Amino acid sequence: MYQTLFTGGVKSGKSRQAERYCIEHFSAISTPIYLATTEYIDSEMQQRISEHQQRRKNTFLTLEEPIHLANVIQSRSEPVLIECMTMWLNNMLFHHYTTAQIFEELERLVSLSNPVVYVLNEVGLGIIPDNELAREFVDLSGRVSQFLGNHCQEVYFCVAGQVLTMKGKQ
Amino acid sequence: MYQTLFTGGVKSGKSRQAERYCIEHFSAISTPIYLATTEYIDSEMQQRISEHQQRRKNTFLTLEEPIHLANVIQSRSEPVLIECMTMWLNNMLFHHYTTAQIFEELERLVSLSNPVVYVLNEVGLGIIPDNELAREFVDLSGRVSQFLGNHCQEVYFCVAGQVLTMKGKQ
Amino acid sequence: MYQTLFTGGVKSGKSRQAERYCIEHFSAISTPIYLATTEYIDSEMQQRISEHQQRRKNTFLTLEEPIHLANVIQSRSEPVLIECMTMWLNNMLFHHYTTAQIFEELERLVSLSNPVVYVLNEVGLGIIPDNELAREFVDLSGRVSQFLGNHCQEVYFCVAGQVLTMKGKQ
Repeated sequence: MYQTLFTGGVKSGKSRQAERYCIEHFSAISTPIYLATTEYIDSEMQQRISEHQQRRKNTFLTLEEPIHLANVIQSRSEPVLIECMTMWLNNMLFHHYTTAQIFEELERLVSLSNPVVYVLNEVGLGIIPDNELAREFVDLSGRVSQFLGNHCQEVYFCVAGQVLTMKGKQ
Repeated sequence: MYQTLFTGGVKSGKSRQAERYCIEHFSAISTPIYLATTEYIDSEMQQRISEHQQRRKNTFLTLEEPIHLANVIQSRSEPVLIECMTMWLNNMLFHHYTTAQIFEELERLVSLSNPVVYVLNEVGLGIIPDNELAREFVDLSGRVSQFLGNHCQEVYFCVAGQVLTMKGKQ
Repeated sequence: MYQTLFTGGVKSGKSRQAERYCIEHFSAISTPIYLATTEYIDSEMQQRISEHQQRRKNTFLTLEEPIHLANVIQSRSEPVLIECMTMWLNNMLFHHYTTAQIFEELERLVSLSNPVVYVLNEVGLGIIPDNELAREFVDLSGRVSQFLGNHCQEVYFCVAGQVLTMKGKQ
């Protein structure tokens, strides 16, 4: 179905833009689902979550699922904003899912009949890290980004709160 | 008033493009101010400054102020190029200004009647650093970038010496 | 002659897009050369190389040269894809070539009569590294990127497997 990717750096406005996109495109028809992928919560994250929730108010129905995203979504009919795929990738690696399993889940996601909006951090535009795990994460995140970018009908890159169309309309 | 943001990575051409922009838009009317925000200077920085000064020649009037940018600018009537906001943010943090104070100064800047051109490093597109201070800096820099991006009439993103319009004309 | 730069982050699709570009623009006339710049090969690299070779099949003639790129290219008449300039820059620094020598080689490259397509990693959009060598690399890589960006007729920035035109057509 029709899917959309918002990517960008830390605090680039990607979440805000993805939420705005969902409200503009979906809210007239139904209340979209906000699928929160956060599993482990420290005080720093708690603050981010509170900020996000405040911004969402009553415009989204919030569900939580750190791993099995496609299962949750296919049991619903509403459009879904997944916030975010970077946290999901972290969770998958933390629980020792293989790269193959990661891409199987992604295949399931891009085959869903619900409209889905993905938010993903762009992490591969800095110096390649010394740390092998970090390097593997950067590599895998890039592959996830490419996979989603190639399957989505619309791809947006956010910088300084602004949106650049990489693929599709707007 | 009319404000413009140039953002991009290290040596992406953002300073050069911002200077070119000022010369094209302002020089016919008045000599623009080059507001240098550098406070602490090591030999590496000294070299960068020399390179920049060589390039500016007599096209700018150079002023220096590491912290209270709005005060300096509102005492003048010329257009101003601030080089750069990343160094200013560094200075603010080094002198223990709070986040609230940082955004108060930004509010003052975007309310000025002078045309202002901001240069800011984009630092949030690499892997999220382990170091907590670095992580906070990335986060804060992204918020500054979003704030300026949302308030400026024109936003440009520089890669490989080239300019991409994120918002506004060119 | 007519030259093109593909830049982007880790696994952003820049190699794939550069190869596609070569096939579209050159293959009807002659088999383009794939100039591999990799010198030292560990198992991680070996895997990447195998992936790349699999993708290239018989569409390219592969040559290898880690340092003296212009010499190899000027002895040929075909269009050349250099994969990649980041590895070449690494090799130059590893063998203690000076910055002046690096830019002399770049001058030679942009003066060649063959059509050349460059692939370069964008590494300057993360936090500035503590490590001085890494900082120098980021700086130098940005200068190489700007140099190539300014000399090439076409410049593309890749994110999430998608291509953004920074300069020239497509």
